[in-house]
Amino acid sequence: MIKLGVLISGSGTNLQAIIDAIARGSLDASIELVISSKPDAYGIKRAKDVSIPTIALSKAVYNEPLAADLLIATEMQNAGADHSGVDYIVMAGYMRMVRRPILEAFPNRVVNIHPALLPAFIGAHGIADAFEYGVKITGVTVHFANDAYDRGPIIAQRALAVAADDTLESLEERIHAIEHELYPEVLQLLAEGRVSVDNRGKVHIE
Amino acid sequence: MIKLGVLISGSGTNLQAIIDAIARGSLDASIELVISSKPDAYGIKRAKDVSIPTIALSKAVYNEPLAADLLIATEMQNAGADHSGVDYIVMAGYMRMVRRPILEAFPNRVVNIHPALLPAFIGAHGIADAFEYGVKITGVTVHFANDAYDRGPIIAQRALAVAADDTLESLEERIHAIEHELYPEVLQLLAEGRVSVDNRGKVHIE
Repeated sequence: MIKLGVLISGSGTNLQAIIDAIARGSLDASIELVISSKPDAYGIKRAKDVSIPTIALSKAVYNEPLAADLLIATEMQNAGADHSGVDYIVMAGYMRMVRRPILEAFPNRVVNIHPALLPAFIGAHGIADAFEYGVKITGVTVHFANDAYDRGPIIAQRALAVAADDTLESLEERIHAIEHELYPEVLQLLAEGRVSVDNRGKVHIE
Repeated sequence: MIKLGVLISGSGTNLQAIIDAIARGSLDASIELVISSKPDAYGIKRAKDVSIPTIALSKAVYNEPLAADLLIATEMQNAGADHSGVDYIVMAGYMRMVRRPILEAFPNRVVNIHPALLPAFIGAHGIADAFEYGVKITGVTVHFANDAYDRGPIIAQRALAVAADDTLESLEERIHAIEHELYPEVLQLLAEGRVSVDNRGKVHIE
């Protein structure tokens, strides 16, 4: 059983996938806190609906990235009924980098999901960039966040063939479906203590 | 039926895979000429063994890349019993870039294979770079060569999961096995006239 803190910015569909996996018993975890970088993120409602504590960053805090990340780190370290903090921070459609205050408080304990096969198509538009490039295979990557944007140790990847009749929309739909499946699976690997990072930054799954 | 000219630099295992696919009738093509950038490439012997005409670049020509590529373009344009030239140039372990004289003579008709899922792991060490990076999925790409190194239009890709117990050697072996399967398949798509490149540089397979 691991305790998770989830970072969101928008609709929170990956958050929902994690909530659902916990509810059906396939992910041995609890979500202790959801922090949104935007006050009006729909994911906040998803969390409140299942009584998960939430924090939405104010505009003032949001505009001070280091202060925001210090706040996030502190809240995550003190989350939970007994204030013992979370084991992992899960980035779920969180549209910002996490900076030093968070990374140092949670070394190799901040997880991100990216809608492409990293290191290909780094950045905020992974699906569209891959589609426009014309790759025939793309996919989803779950990795530990570090100070190299989208370049942290890769935990898991899943591939997907781009179909001849795919539109950007149909591709997005299938990528998101894989995300919602893969993310809880990887978190369950973490819950089972099966994931380690070696000194060269490579991830091993036992 | 298409006529191929093959460029090699080394042992020519992809050349052999193409020769074998033609021999067993799964690739509707003929190899009219094999050109090696190195005089002692073992692939030269593979070609001679099945009576394919060969040219090995002399050291002097090799050291003049533009002259070499002009020679290659000219030979490929005049290859075959009736000197009508080849339809496609196939790079098979050819360890050089192809330059303007070849690309202009064979626009979107120079095919290359790369042992990674491009645009990830561009360069001469695709397998090792992917392995060292720690990706969980890699693969093979067949693409048209253009003046952007390893960045030409992608025709086909095939993915491969990196196993927990993979060594670089075991991964290389499986990548090469995929290459030897995929390359003749893609050439057969070309033989069937099913491959087109649109004005944005995306490949469509009919």
